[in-house]
Amino acid sequence: MSKKLWGGRFAKKTDPLVEKFTKSIHYDYKLAEYDVIGSITHVQILKNAGYLTYTEAFSIIKELILILQSIRKGLFKLDSKSEDIHSQIQNMLEKKLGDLVLKLHTARSRNDQVIFATKIYCKWAVLSLINKDMKHLINSITKLADENKNIIIPGFTHLQHAQPVYLKDYFGAYESMLRRDVRRLLNISQNIEIFMGAGALAGTPIVSKEYNQKIEKYIREIGIDKSFNIKPTINSLDAVSDRDFVIEIISALSIIAMHLSRLAEDLIIWSTKEFDFIEIDEAFCTGSSLMPQKKNPDVLELVRGYASRLYGNLVSVLTMMKGLPLTYNRDMQLDKEPLFNSFEIVSSELKVLSGLIKTLKFNKNKIKEHLKDESLYATDLVYYLVKKGESFKKAHDIVGKLVKDSLEREGGIQGMSDKDLKRYCAKFVKSEILKLFDPLESVRSKKSIKR
Amino acid sequence: MSKKLWGGRFAKKTDPLVEKFTKSIHYDYKLAEYDVIGSITHVQILKNAGYLTYTEAFSIIKELILILQSIRKGLFKLDSKSEDIHSQIQNMLEKKLGDLVLKLHTARSRNDQVIFATKIYCKWAVLSLINKDMKHLINSITKLADENKNIIIPGFTHLQHAQPVYLKDYFGAYESMLRRDVRRLLNISQNIEIFMGAGALAGTPIVSKEYNQKIEKYIREIGIDKSFNIKPTINSLDAVSDRDFVIEIISALSIIAMHLSRLAEDLIIWSTKEFDFIEIDEAFCTGSSLMPQKKNPDVLELVRGYASRLYGNLVSVLTMMKGLPLTYNRDMQLDKEPLFNSFEIVSSELKVLSGLIKTLKFNKNKIKEHLKDESLYATDLVYYLVKKGESFKKAHDIVGKLVKDSLEREGGIQGMSDKDLKRYCAKFVKSEILKLFDPLESVRSKKSIKR
Amino acid sequence: MSKKLWGGRFAKKTDPLVEKFTKSIHYDYKLAEYDVIGSITHVQILKNAGYLTYTEAFSIIKELILILQSIRKGLFKLDSKSEDIHSQIQNMLEKKLGDLVLKLHTARSRNDQVIFATKIYCKWAVLSLINKDMKHLINSITKLADENKNIIIPGFTHLQHAQPVYLKDYFGAYESMLRRDVRRLLNISQNIEIFMGAGALAGTPIVSKEYNQKIEKYIREIGIDKSFNIKPTINSLDAVSDRDFVIEIISALSIIAMHLSRLAEDLIIWSTKEFDFIEIDEAFCTGSSLMPQKKNPDVLELVRGYASRLYGNLVSVLTMMKGLPLTYNRDMQLDKEPLFNSFEIVSSELKVLSGLIKTLKFNKNKIKEHLKDESLYATDLVYYLVKKGESFKKAHDIVGKLVKDSLEREGGIQGMSDKDLKRYCAKFVKSEILKLFDPLESVRSKKSIKR
Amino acid sequence: MSKKLWGGRFAKKTDPLVEKFTKSIHYDYKLAEYDVIGSITHVQILKNAGYLTYTEAFSIIKELILILQSIRKGLFKLDSKSEDIHSQIQNMLEKKLGDLVLKLHTARSRNDQVIFATKIYCKWAVLSLINKDMKHLINSITKLADENKNIIIPGFTHLQHAQPVYLKDYFGAYESMLRRDVRRLLNISQNIEIFMGAGALAGTPIVSKEYNQKIEKYIREIGIDKSFNIKPTINSLDAVSDRDFVIEIISALSIIAMHLSRLAEDLIIWSTKEFDFIEIDEAFCTGSSLMPQKKNPDVLELVRGYASRLYGNLVSVLTMMKGLPLTYNRDMQLDKEPLFNSFEIVSSELKVLSGLIKTLKFNKNKIKEHLKDESLYATDLVYYLVKKGESFKKAHDIVGKLVKDSLEREGGIQGMSDKDLKRYCAKFVKSEILKLFDPLESVRSKKSIKR
Repeated sequence: MSKKLWGGRFAKKTDPLVEKFTKSIHYDYKLAEYDVIGSITHVQILKNAGYLTYTEAFSIIKELILILQSIRKGLFKLDSKSEDIHSQIQNMLEKKLGDLVLKLHTARSRNDQVIFATKIYCKWAVLSLINKDMKHLINSITKLADENKNIIIPGFTHLQHAQPVYLKDYFGAYESMLRRDVRRLLNISQNIEIFMGAGALAGTPIVSKEYNQKIEKYIREIGIDKSFNIKPTINSLDAVSDRDFVIEIISALSIIAMHLSRLAEDLIIWSTKEFDFIEIDEAFCTGSSLMPQKKNPDVLELVRGYASRLYGNLVSVLTMMKGLPLTYNRDMQLDKEPLFNSFEIVSSELKVLSGLIKTLKFNKNKIKEHLKDESLYATDLVYYLVKKGESFKKAHDIVGKLVKDSLEREGGIQGMSDKDLKRYCAKFVKSEILKLFDPLESVRSKKSIKR
Repeated sequence: MSKKLWGGRFAKKTDPLVEKFTKSIHYDYKLAEYDVIGSITHVQILKNAGYLTYTEAFSIIKELILILQSIRKGLFKLDSKSEDIHSQIQNMLEKKLGDLVLKLHTARSRNDQVIFATKIYCKWAVLSLINKDMKHLINSITKLADENKNIIIPGFTHLQHAQPVYLKDYFGAYESMLRRDVRRLLNISQNIEIFMGAGALAGTPIVSKEYNQKIEKYIREIGIDKSFNIKPTINSLDAVSDRDFVIEIISALSIIAMHLSRLAEDLIIWSTKEFDFIEIDEAFCTGSSLMPQKKNPDVLELVRGYASRLYGNLVSVLTMMKGLPLTYNRDMQLDKEPLFNSFEIVSSELKVLSGLIKTLKFNKNKIKEHLKDESLYATDLVYYLVKKGESFKKAHDIVGKLVKDSLEREGGIQGMSDKDLKRYCAKFVKSEILKLFDPLESVRSKKSIKR
Repeated sequence: MSKKLWGGRFAKKTDPLVEKFTKSIHYDYKLAEYDVIGSITHVQILKNAGYLTYTEAFSIIKELILILQSIRKGLFKLDSKSEDIHSQIQNMLEKKLGDLVLKLHTARSRNDQVIFATKIYCKWAVLSLINKDMKHLINSITKLADENKNIIIPGFTHLQHAQPVYLKDYFGAYESMLRRDVRRLLNISQNIEIFMGAGALAGTPIVSKEYNQKIEKYIREIGIDKSFNIKPTINSLDAVSDRDFVIEIISALSIIAMHLSRLAEDLIIWSTKEFDFIEIDEAFCTGSSLMPQKKNPDVLELVRGYASRLYGNLVSVLTMMKGLPLTYNRDMQLDKEPLFNSFEIVSSELKVLSGLIKTLKFNKNKIKEHLKDESLYATDLVYYLVKKGESFKKAHDIVGKLVKDSLEREGGIQGMSDKDLKRYCAKFVKSEILKLFDPLESVRSKKSIKR
Repeated sequence: MSKKLWGGRFAKKTDPLVEKFTKSIHYDYKLAEYDVIGSITHVQILKNAGYLTYTEAFSIIKELILILQSIRKGLFKLDSKSEDIHSQIQNMLEKKLGDLVLKLHTARSRNDQVIFATKIYCKWAVLSLINKDMKHLINSITKLADENKNIIIPGFTHLQHAQPVYLKDYFGAYESMLRRDVRRLLNISQNIEIFMGAGALAGTPIVSKEYNQKIEKYIREIGIDKSFNIKPTINSLDAVSDRDFVIEIISALSIIAMHLSRLAEDLIIWSTKEFDFIEIDEAFCTGSSLMPQKKNPDVLELVRGYASRLYGNLVSVLTMMKGLPLTYNRDMQLDKEPLFNSFEIVSSELKVLSGLIKTLKFNKNKIKEHLKDESLYATDLVYYLVKKGESFKKAHDIVGKLVKDSLEREGGIQGMSDKDLKRYCAKFVKSEILKLFDPLESVRSKKSIKR
C-alpha cells in the first residue's frame, strides 16, 4: 500500500480493490509539472505568511526545482504505486527533506491543488495546440491553396453540382473554420482564472493578498514567454467545484474535430474512382490484406471517426457534473482522462492531416471534365436574364425548364440553336450565353467576395 | 401543395410524404421577425446595386415593415401549409405586390437567408436571456444571501461535513457560476459574425462593399438599444455551412443547465426530513395522489432532470454536423429545434427557480443543531497546533486520531479533560480549544477570502 | 388553476410558473388510451378486492369505455388546463359520476399509473412500427432488389472500388439490418413486464393474486389480435422507478436510425453527378431558390441527419436516470418526450424512404462503365494464381505490382501481352485471365454465399 | 516500420505519423486469443477446401496452439511495432513456418478477421461478467438483505419520506435491476451470430457449407464448458460492416452503470451525518489531506461518476457509425477502445461494490428514530378511513389536512385527543389509529407483494 496524503483517522488499511479503483496516477502524471509549479508558489506564500522560515522555504523550493527539471528533461520516473501524482511528489520530497515537508500541506487541500494544476495544464495545452499543430495545418492548407490558386472546381451543395468555385476558396473555408477555432480556444483559455487559497472549500487562514502571485519565471526557464496571474479565490466553494473550463475546452476541441471530420469526408469522396479529383500520397494510405489493388484513405476515415470520440468525451464530462451537490465530489476526478484524451486526439489529427495535405495532388484533367457539366452555369444564365430585365424568379423558372429539357438532348444547352433558346426566353442570344459556360467567367462574376 | 421558392425544373409534384417530412414551418416560424429584417436589408442592397428602383424598393420595404409590425404585435398568422417561414413571407408579399416580389430573390439563397435569421435570433435570444431571466435569478439569489447573511451552515465535500461556511458564500458560489455563464454567453454572442452576400455558396454579382450594413433601426423601433453590423462574407462556402455558433450556444446553455441541476440537487437534499435545512414554499411544491402527507420538490427535480435534455440537444447538433461534406446540406435544418428548445428550457428553469428561491425559508434551529458536529472544527484544531509550531501533517495526524477516538466517547472532544487532550499532543490547552468549536470563529479565521 | 389529483395538505395555490413548468399534458396525451385501459383493469381489481360493488364498478367501466371509444375514434378533446392526461381523465369521470369516482384512486398511485401506461404504449408502438412501417420498407427494398436482380455494381470498402457485387446483395445488406432491427425490437418489447400493485412504492393492501390480469379484450375491439399479461409486482420499489425499457427502446430505435443514415449516405453518394448510379424520383427531391438546375436529395439528407436526433434522445434519457435515488423522482417524467419523439422520427423516416426506394431508377449504362475499372478484378487474379499453386500472400504481391504498373499504361492489364504478364508471374496466361475481367464471372466465383 | 499484411501495390513507405495514427495493437491485443481461434478454424476450412494439405494445416495449427497456450498462460509478448494484433500473430507464424504461412491469407480479409474476433470477445466477456462480477454483487446484496431482513426503513419518493419499507425490499430492487441486466446481456450475447466467409465484402471461392463450424474444443481446454456455432455468412456486405452488437452491449453496460450509480447515490446520501443510516467500512473510504476528520465515500462517488463514462462510450460508437457508406470503413476500428473500456469499468465497479456492500453496517437506532416521523403512516390512515367506508379521495383530503395541522402541534397526530381527531373525520377512533404508527404493521398491511 502506498503512502497517502491522509490517513490519521483511519485504523484500517484501504482495501486493495479500492486502491486500484480510486488510483489516478496512470493518467494524472501529466499534471506533474503543474503540480510542482503550484507547490513552489505555495511555498512562497507560506513563507510570506510566516508558516515557513526563509531557509525552510529555500530548501523545499530547491528540491521542487530539481523535480521540475527532471520532469522537463523527461527523466521523471512514475511511481505507479502512488495514489496520484500529488502524493508521489510529496513522497519524493519527504525522502529528501524529511519532516520539513510535513509543513507543505499547511493551508492547502488536494481539491485545490488538482484544479490549479489542471487549469495551468489547460492553458498550456491550448497554447501548444494553437502554436504548433493548428498553425501547421493552417499553413499546409494555405500553401496548398496558394500552389493551386488557379484551379476551379465544381462547388457542391447537397453533394450536387452547384456553381464553380475556386479550389482556394474551398480550402479557404477550412482555413476560416480553423482560424475561428483558434480564436475560440484562445478566448476560453484566457478566461480561465487561476485561484489560490480556497483550501478544501472554506478558505485558509492566510490573508488573501498573499495569493496575488505570478508563475512566470518557472515557465520562462523552458523558453516560453508567458506568465499567468494567480489571484486570491473569490468564492472558495465555487473554486474547488468548478469544471466549466474542462467542458468548454472539450466542447471547442469537439468543434475542431467536427471541422476536420468534414474535411476528411470531402477528401474521401474526392479520392473515389468516380470523383477522382485528388490523389492522396501513398505514404498516407494503407492497403488491404485481401485485395491487392487497394489504396485506402484510412487516415481520413479515422479523422472522420475520431470526432465521435471527442463527442463521447464531452458527454462524459457534462454528465459527470450533472446534479453534483456542492462542493467537491470525487466524481470530478473523472474529468481528466477525457480532457487529456481530447487534446491527444485533436493534436494527432492535426499533425497527420498537415502531412497528408502537403502531399495532395489534384487531377486537373478530371476536374476540368467535371466542370463541363452545364448545370453548373445555370445560375449564371439566370443572372444573364436578370441583367436583361427579367425578374429573378421568372428567370429562375425559365432556366429551370431549359436545364430540364437539355438533359434529354444531345449537345445540351450549348448545342441548341438561337431559335431553340428564344423559345424559352426571347432575351437569350446564343452567342452571348455561350461565353457563360466558362468556369473562370463564372467565378469572376461573383463580386460579393473581396479578392 | 404549398407554393415553393423553387420548382421550375420540376415536372412532378412533391410527394405528400416528402412535403411533411421536409417541412419546417412548425418550428422555424420563430425566425419570422429576423427573416423580415434580413429581407429589408437585402432590398436596400438590391436597390443600391441597381437591381431594384427606388420606388420598387420602397414598395417592398413598406410591405415588409407591415409584416414586421404584425409579428411584433403578435398578430402574425402562421400558414402551416408553407414549407418554411421564408416561403410563407415570400408568398404573403407576392399576394400584395404581385410580380414585383419575384425580384426579391435576386442574388440570394435560402441557405444564406436561414443562417442570417438564425444568427440574429441567437444574438437576440442571448441578450434576452441574460437581461431578463438570468438577471432575475441572480437577483433572487443575492437577495436571499443578503437576507440570511449571518447564517452559517455546515459546508460539504463528498456530501460529508467539511467545515462551517457562510450560507451567503454557498449561494455566492452559484452567483459566481451564473456570472461566469453570463460572460460566456455574451462572449459567444459577440463573436457571431453576420455576413451577407454568400449566395448559395459561391457569392453574388453584387460588389462586396454593398454588404456593409447595420440593422439597428428596425430593432430600435421596439425599444431595444442595440445594433448589429453586417459584413460582406469573407468565405462564402464557410458562411453557408457554418453551425459552430449553434453548438457553442447550446454548449453554454448546457453548462447553465448543469449549474442549475447542482443547485436543485442541493436544495432537494436540504429539504429532506433528515437534513431539514430549508422549507420550500408550498406554491413551489406538488403532492401525491396516494400519500396525503407529501410535499415534493418536483420543480427542483425537473430542473435537475432538464440538464439531460440540454445535453441531448448538444449531442444532436454536434452529431448532425459530423462528417458533412461542404457546403450546405439539408441535415443542417435539424439545428433549429434543439436550439430553440434549449433556450426555452433554460429560460423556464431560470424563471421558476427565481420564484422558488425568493420564497425559500431556512430552519435556523435545525442548522444550528447540525453545526454542533465537532468534526466540522477538526481543521481548526489542526491550524491551532500549527500555530503552536507543529508541522501541518503531524497536526493532521494528531487531530485525526483525536476525532476517531471522540466518536466513541460520550461528550466528544469538548468533554475530554485537559489531561486527556495532552495525551494526543502536549500543545493542547483545553480552555483554548473550546473556543474553536464555534462556527463564527471558524468562518472568521479564514482570511484568504476577501470580505 | 386546474383540478389536481392531490392537494388536501396544501393551503396555498400552486404558483402559475410551477403549473406551467410541471405540466405534461401537451405530450402525455398520447397515453390517454393506455391510461383508460389501466383504469378499467384497476376497477375490476378493486371490485374483486371488495373496494367497489359490482354496480359501482360497472358504472365506472361504462364511462371508461365511452372515453376509450372517443379516443379511438379520434374524438377525444384535450383539456390543456389539466396537469396531465391522468388528471384530465379523472376529472372527466368525476363530472359524469360524481363522488363515486373518488374511490377510483384507492390503492393506486400516479407513479404506477404512468409506468403502466408507458409500458403498454411501448409494446403497442413497437408492434405498430414493425408491422407497418418496417414491413413496408423491407418490402420496398426486397422488391427493388428483385426487380434489379441481375445488376452488378462495384462493391466498396473505404469508399474505394473493392470487388463487384450484386445490387440485390447490396440491398440485401440493408434488409439484413432491418430484419435484425425487427428481432431486436420484438425481443425488447416481449421482455417488458407489466406489473400492477406497486402503489407509490410500498405496495397496496390488495392481495397479490388479484393483480393477475389480462388486457386482451379492450385491445381486440380495435381489431388487433394481441393480449398482454399483467402480473403482481415483484419488487414494488423497482417497479415504480424502472425506466430501463425506455432506454432499451430508444437505443434500438437509434440503431435503426443509424442503419437508415447509412442507406441515405450511400444513395446520396450514388446520386452525385460523378457516381450517377441512380436517379431519385423528382417527387422525392427538392430544388433551390437560387440555382434553377438543382434537384437535391433533401429527404435522404434529413434521414441521415435525424439519426443524431435519436442519439440525443438516448443521451437525454440515460443522463436523466443517472444517480437518481430510489424510488420515483419527478425527473423521470422527462422520459416521455424523447420516447415519443424517437418513435415519430423513425416512423416517418421509414415511411418516406419506403416511397423513395420504390421509385428509384438505376443508370445501368453508367454502372457498367464503372465496372470496367480493372482494379475490381484484382482479387480474382490473386485467386487465379492461388489455384495455380502460388501462395496467397505472394500472389497478392504479384497482382499488387501488376495493378500499380498498369495504372500508368494505356490499355491496362488487358492490354498487356502474354509476355508482359509472365514477367510478373510465369503462371499468367493471357487468354485465361482476360475472362476474369467480367463482373458476372467475378460474383459467380464467390461460392461462400448461398444463393 | 513494421511488416504489414498488405503492401505489394505500394512503392513508398508509410509515413511514420500514419503508422502511429492508424496503429491499434496497444488496444486490440485483447483480441489475441480470439484471433488465434479464428485462424485455427480458418486453417481447417482451407484444408477441407483443398487450399492446404493435411500436413500444411497440421503444421500451422500446431504453431497456432502454441501461441494460444502462451496467451492463456499470460506469456504472450506484445510487439508494439506491429500495426495490429492480427499482423503480429501472422509475423510470429512466418518466423516459425516461413513461406507456408503466406497461404494463410487465402480467402480471408482483415475486416472479417476483426469482426470474428470481436464477436467472440464479446460473447466471452459477457459470460465472464455475468458469471463472476455480477454474480458476486448479486450475492453480496442478497446476503446483506438476508442478514438485515427485519430492518424497516423510511421509503422515499422524491427523496421525501413516503412509506415504511423493508430494507430487504430496498436492496431487492437493486437485485431485480441486476437480474434484469443479466438477462439483457445474455439475450444480446446469444443473438450475436458468428459468420465466416464474407471475405472483404464479396464472399470467397470456398463453398458455403465449409463454414459450418464449431469452436468448442479450443475453449474447453481452458475449462469453460461452452461452444459457439459458426455459420456461413448470410449477407457478406452486412457481415463486415455490422457493429450493432457493439452498440447493444455498450448500451446494456450503460444501463448497468446507471443502476450502480443509483445505488451509489443512495448510499452516499445514507452515509451523510444527517441521514446516518449506514456506516461504510473504513477500508472502502478515503480521507482528506486537509481535514483530518474526513471519511469520504469516494468509491461510491466514482461509481456514480463512471456511468457518464459509459454514456460517452455509447455516444462515441453510435456517432462513429452514423452515415457510414457500405461496407467496411476504417472509422469502425474506433469501436474497440470504447467497448473494452466499458467492460473494464463495469467489471471494476461490480467488484469494488461487492466488497463495499459486504462490509456495510446499519445504524438501527438512527433508522428507528427516522421511522418515528408520523407522515410515513399517512397513507395507512387513509386506508383506515377507506375500510370504514370513506372514499379514497376524501380520506386523502382529510388526512392531508390532519398532517398539515399536526406539523404545527407538539405531540403530532398521536398527541391529539379522540375529539380532536373526530373534528377531521367522525370515523377516527384514537385507540385504533395509534396502532397504525408502527412500521411493522405498515409493511405487513401491504398484501400486494408476495412474501
